[in-house]
Amino acid sequence: MSKLDLKNGFVEMAHGSGGRASSLLVDELFLPAFENRYLKEKVDQATLPSHQSRITMATDSHVISPLFFPGGNIGSLAIHGTVNDVCLSGAKPLYLSVAFIIEEGFPLADLERIVDSMANAAREAEVLIVTGDTKVVEKGHGDGVFINTTAIGSLDEGRNLGPSNIRAGDKLIVSGSLGDHGTCIMSQRQNLNFSSQLKSDSQALNDLVATMLDAVPSIRCMRDPTRGGLAASLHELIQHRALGISIVEDALTIKPEVAATAELLGLDPLYIANEGKLIAVCPPEQADRLVEIMNHHPKGLDASIIGEVIEDKRELVQLHTSFGGKRLIEWKFADQLPRIC
Amino acid sequence: MSKLDLKNGFVEMAHGSGGRASSLLVDELFLPAFENRYLKEKVDQATLPSHQSRITMATDSHVISPLFFPGGNIGSLAIHGTVNDVCLSGAKPLYLSVAFIIEEGFPLADLERIVDSMANAAREAEVLIVTGDTKVVEKGHGDGVFINTTAIGSLDEGRNLGPSNIRAGDKLIVSGSLGDHGTCIMSQRQNLNFSSQLKSDSQALNDLVATMLDAVPSIRCMRDPTRGGLAASLHELIQHRALGISIVEDALTIKPEVAATAELLGLDPLYIANEGKLIAVCPPEQADRLVEIMNHHPKGLDASIIGEVIEDKRELVQLHTSFGGKRLIEWKFADQLPRIC
Repeated sequence: MSKLDLKNGFVEMAHGSGGRASSLLVDELFLPAFENRYLKEKVDQATLPSHQSRITMATDSHVISPLFFPGGNIGSLAIHGTVNDVCLSGAKPLYLSVAFIIEEGFPLADLERIVDSMANAAREAEVLIVTGDTKVVEKGHGDGVFINTTAIGSLDEGRNLGPSNIRAGDKLIVSGSLGDHGTCIMSQRQNLNFSSQLKSDSQALNDLVATMLDAVPSIRCMRDPTRGGLAASLHELIQHRALGISIVEDALTIKPEVAATAELLGLDPLYIANEGKLIAVCPPEQADRLVEIMNHHPKGLDASIIGEVIEDKRELVQLHTSFGGKRLIEWKFADQLPRIC
Repeated sequence: MSKLDLKNGFVEMAHGSGGRASSLLVDELFLPAFENRYLKEKVDQATLPSHQSRITMATDSHVISPLFFPGGNIGSLAIHGTVNDVCLSGAKPLYLSVAFIIEEGFPLADLERIVDSMANAAREAEVLIVTGDTKVVEKGHGDGVFINTTAIGSLDEGRNLGPSNIRAGDKLIVSGSLGDHGTCIMSQRQNLNFSSQLKSDSQALNDLVATMLDAVPSIRCMRDPTRGGLAASLHELIQHRALGISIVEDALTIKPEVAATAELLGLDPLYIANEGKLIAVCPPEQADRLVEIMNHHPKGLDASIIGEVIEDKRELVQLHTSFGGKRLIEWKFADQLPRIC
């Protein structure tokens, strides 16, 4: 066998063996898709130019089910997720490694679709996939494909967007609508056909983040509300800091189709994963300007101030409801949604 | 639940959810084991000091079965494998990311054993685990635990150990016995109890490599003969270079118990994975000196010259047998051994 049958073929144990079959998969699928000077060296590691700045490193393994969904697939998601983890530290994402664990019998055509999505997502985010690895496990010992991506980026000296910067009085800004990704995935699993408008928000945020930091360098901290949703991210921001958070329900953007589907599924959009949104914490005097800047960026059209950081030794997150009430947003022990990313 | 039951507990879907359960796993297991200043920031990425040198990056997902074996487990192997990929480029491995995909119901005690082995292996290799990720998949959709490790290291300007440096006349040196790892794993799977002396050679090679490069900076290229064994690595060295390789059977070290078990299993030690050995290619005039240096290092006691690079447009690897014959070492389409790392 000297050519990969990308149209009708399947992944075999041999493709993960380190023999010629592995080499074929790399030469005919991965290298052309991810083409760049570092990767084509075809060695077990990538050698990258030096950077004077500090290095930021982030890793994520992706196990989302289903693999394909409206708005993306496990491949694009794997690029977006790791790029976002790096850029939200204030760093510029530069290089990615990609490692596949593929279940024997997986259609090569599906693998190609995933790889093409990764290549596109990397191109759009202006990062290079510079090294990789492929393993194959026997049928029944995996689940289609799992993808690890690890990213490194360069971080300017002096920049620090850690949560220790957060002060009482700071404003909280969210870049757009909440719950799109998780609701889309759950409705796919449940075959809710009526909710066909639902689409994952999976996207890379590095261009939005760069615009924000250029305009407002005093941003204190940023986070992406992925697993556990907005609720988990807000709790992580204030844990062990004797701070609380007060947010306003009316300031949150939740699409009507997301709200309806979440209600049907018994889910709360505040706890649902997002894959293309960020939370920014900034000094109060900069908040309006930052929102205005974000509203001019295609990925921040619906950005708004959702609340503020307050002094609170109990470290509570409080929601002021549309009806004038107050509700505690607890930090759940487990997310409602397994395998959402 | 506010504490992890590391003795009798099991991994639950909640531990991969991004909620408090996830936080508990990180706080009570991963952070204490891998303790360092970068990791304990508990953010989604690690920020690392700047390095003037170039950066080397390598990734590997580990799917070995069984998870525990004589000489190590998936955890130590995951550290050794990625450290070796980085150091064989001539770089100094510095930082590692670790990402787990765990099957629901996996015993926490086993996870702790694995994590402790990783911590020990990282300490011995003098690398820091600076960021990580945990995902949990439902029972029957994984296989115990899969571990991705991605390493970055610093590479001095001007150093290049790529296979394009190789010249006809260069000598090939192997650092020790062949086939230990793969034979050990296969005998575990087959329950060959008589072969109880078999032990994986899994180890980090960065100290050996540093010693070698200090003494003989003119080393052309290094490789670790993992999946596909010595045979696959030799073919990779000469592919597309119009070079051939000639090796001498009598110069190869194969332990008697490895040879006996391989024969019983119908395996050829030249095609069996190693996890703690390296191949070095060096100019002929430096070969004796390099072997001597290696023989003084605990990880190179059995190092020897196994053959040389020759001009050969057919790019063949030839073995001169003990009986005076010649045998072609082909590049197999698939490795004999699935899930060996």
